[in-house]
Amino acid sequence: MFISDTTKDGLRLREFSLDRQGRTVPGALWQPVESTPGAPMVCCGHGASGDRFQAPIPWLARRLAGQHGFSVLSIDGPVHGLRQVGAGGREAFWPEWKREGTAADMTADWKQALDFAQAQPEVGAGPVGYWGLSMGTIYGVPFVASESRVSVAVLGLMGITGPDHYVPVIQSSAEQISVPVLFLMQLEDELFDRGQCLALFDALASDDKRLHANPGLHPAVPVEELASSADFLVKHLSGGSTDRSPTFTVSN
Amino acid sequence: MFISDTTKDGLRLREFSLDRQGRTVPGALWQPVESTPGAPMVCCGHGASGDRFQAPIPWLARRLAGQHGFSVLSIDGPVHGLRQVGAGGREAFWPEWKREGTAADMTADWKQALDFAQAQPEVGAGPVGYWGLSMGTIYGVPFVASESRVSVAVLGLMGITGPDHYVPVIQSSAEQISVPVLFLMQLEDELFDRGQCLALFDALASDDKRLHANPGLHPAVPVEELASSADFLVKHLSGGSTDRSPTFTVSN
Repeated sequence: MFISDTTKDGLRLREFSLDRQGRTVPGALWQPVESTPGAPMVCCGHGASGDRFQAPIPWLARRLAGQHGFSVLSIDGPVHGLRQVGAGGREAFWPEWKREGTAADMTADWKQALDFAQAQPEVGAGPVGYWGLSMGTIYGVPFVASESRVSVAVLGLMGITGPDHYVPVIQSSAEQISVPVLFLMQLEDELFDRGQCLALFDALASDDKRLHANPGLHPAVPVEELASSADFLVKHLSGGSTDRSPTFTVSN
Repeated sequence: MFISDTTKDGLRLREFSLDRQGRTVPGALWQPVESTPGAPMVCCGHGASGDRFQAPIPWLARRLAGQHGFSVLSIDGPVHGLRQVGAGGREAFWPEWKREGTAADMTADWKQALDFAQAQPEVGAGPVGYWGLSMGTIYGVPFVASESRVSVAVLGLMGITGPDHYVPVIQSSAEQISVPVLFLMQLEDELFDRGQCLALFDALASDDKRLHANPGLHPAVPVEELASSADFLVKHLSGGSTDRSPTFTVSN
C-alpha cells in the first residue's frame, strides 16, 4: 500500500510498502502529475549500500517521468534501505549474496512491485524496461530473464562472478535474456575485471546488445553515459523503430 | 588549389587538389556559407574502397558544419578516389598497405591538407579533431599520433593487425595518442576480431578513452552511433568542459 504521496517540480512521488510472505518490500513510484495510463515504465535497481533513492535513480526519474511521461519504479534490495540488516552496506550484502534463494526472492519482490504498480489505474500495463548497474545487475539479470513484461534493459558494472551458488544463476539467466540490452563497463573497475564483465555481456542471448566502456573506477559512470542509457530506454519503450538502423555502409 | 566551389542547403563545399612531391592529394572542404574563422575542424578519413565522399562523411559534414559551424576536411586515401590505381577497391589497397612508408605518406598528405585548409582566412587555425574508421583508423592512428593539432579522435573498426611492417607502426602510434578517443567496434566484425580491436584500444595512451561496441558486421555501424560520435567531437572541440563528469556515484 502507498504510505506517502508528494509532488515536486511536476513529478508525483509515492512511496509504498508491500508484504510478501511476511517480508516487506519498500518502494517508490514516480509519475508525472498528469500521467497517462499505459505509458512506459522503467524499473530501477540500485547498487550495494544504496537504496531505492540512490543516485542516479531520482535523476533518471526526473528525466524519464518528467521529460517523457514514463512511470519509474524502484524498490529496496534485500538488506538495503528500509530492509537494512545490522550495519548495512557491503558488509551486510555479502552474506545475503551468498544465501541461496536471494536472487529468486528479489525477482519475486520485483514481480510483486510491478504487479502492484501496474494495477494502479493511473499507471496501467504499458511497456516495461529495466535499469540497474552493479548490484542492480546482480539481481536484474535473473529478474529480466524471468519477467516477460520487460522488453529492454540497461545492465552492467558486473560480470560472471559471485558466490558459488550464484555463478550458474547469472550465467543461465543471461542466456535467457533476448531483449535489447545496453551494457556498461568501467575500464578501471576495481571490483569486477574486464574478463568477467565481457563474459556476462557475451552470455546475453540478445541479438541487439551494445557495450559502452568508459574510463574510471567502478562508480565513475560519466553523466553523459547515464543520459545515453535513458535515451536507449526511451527509444525502445516509446514505440519507435527498434531497428538497428545500419543506414550507412562504412567499408573497411 | 581549389578546383570547385558549390553551395547546397547552406553548406559550401570546395574540392581541392594539392601537389606533394609529384603526388596529388585530392580533397574536399565543407563549411557553412556563413563561416567563422577559427571554428573547429574535423578531418574525416574514409574506409577502403571508398573515397573522400564515402558515407557517412557527407552526413557528418552536414551535421558538423551545418549544425555546429565546423569545417570538415576529407582527402582521398592512397590508391583511392582520384588516386585510384588499377581496379581500385580492396584489391588495390592490400599491396599499398604492404608498402613500407604508406602510413608516413598518408600522414604527410593529411598534414599538407590541414596546412592548406587552415591557411584559408575563412577557415583559420581552430581546434582540430579526427574521425576515421577501418582504413580511416589504419591511417588515422599514425596521423593523430604525430599531429599535435589534433585534440580528439573517433577511431575503430580496426585492430592491432596488418602487414608485418605495419603492426609495429600502429602499436607504437597508438601508444603515443593521449587525446580523448571514442573507439567503435562491431560485435560480428568479419574483418577484425575482438581481440585485435581490444588490443588497439588498450594500446591507446589516452586517459579518456571510451569503447562502444554494436551488433552487426563490419560495415553496419548504427546511425545513432554515428550521431553519438559526432556529438563526442562537438563536445570536445566546442570549448565546453572535457571533464569525465562522474557526477553520480553508482555504488556496487
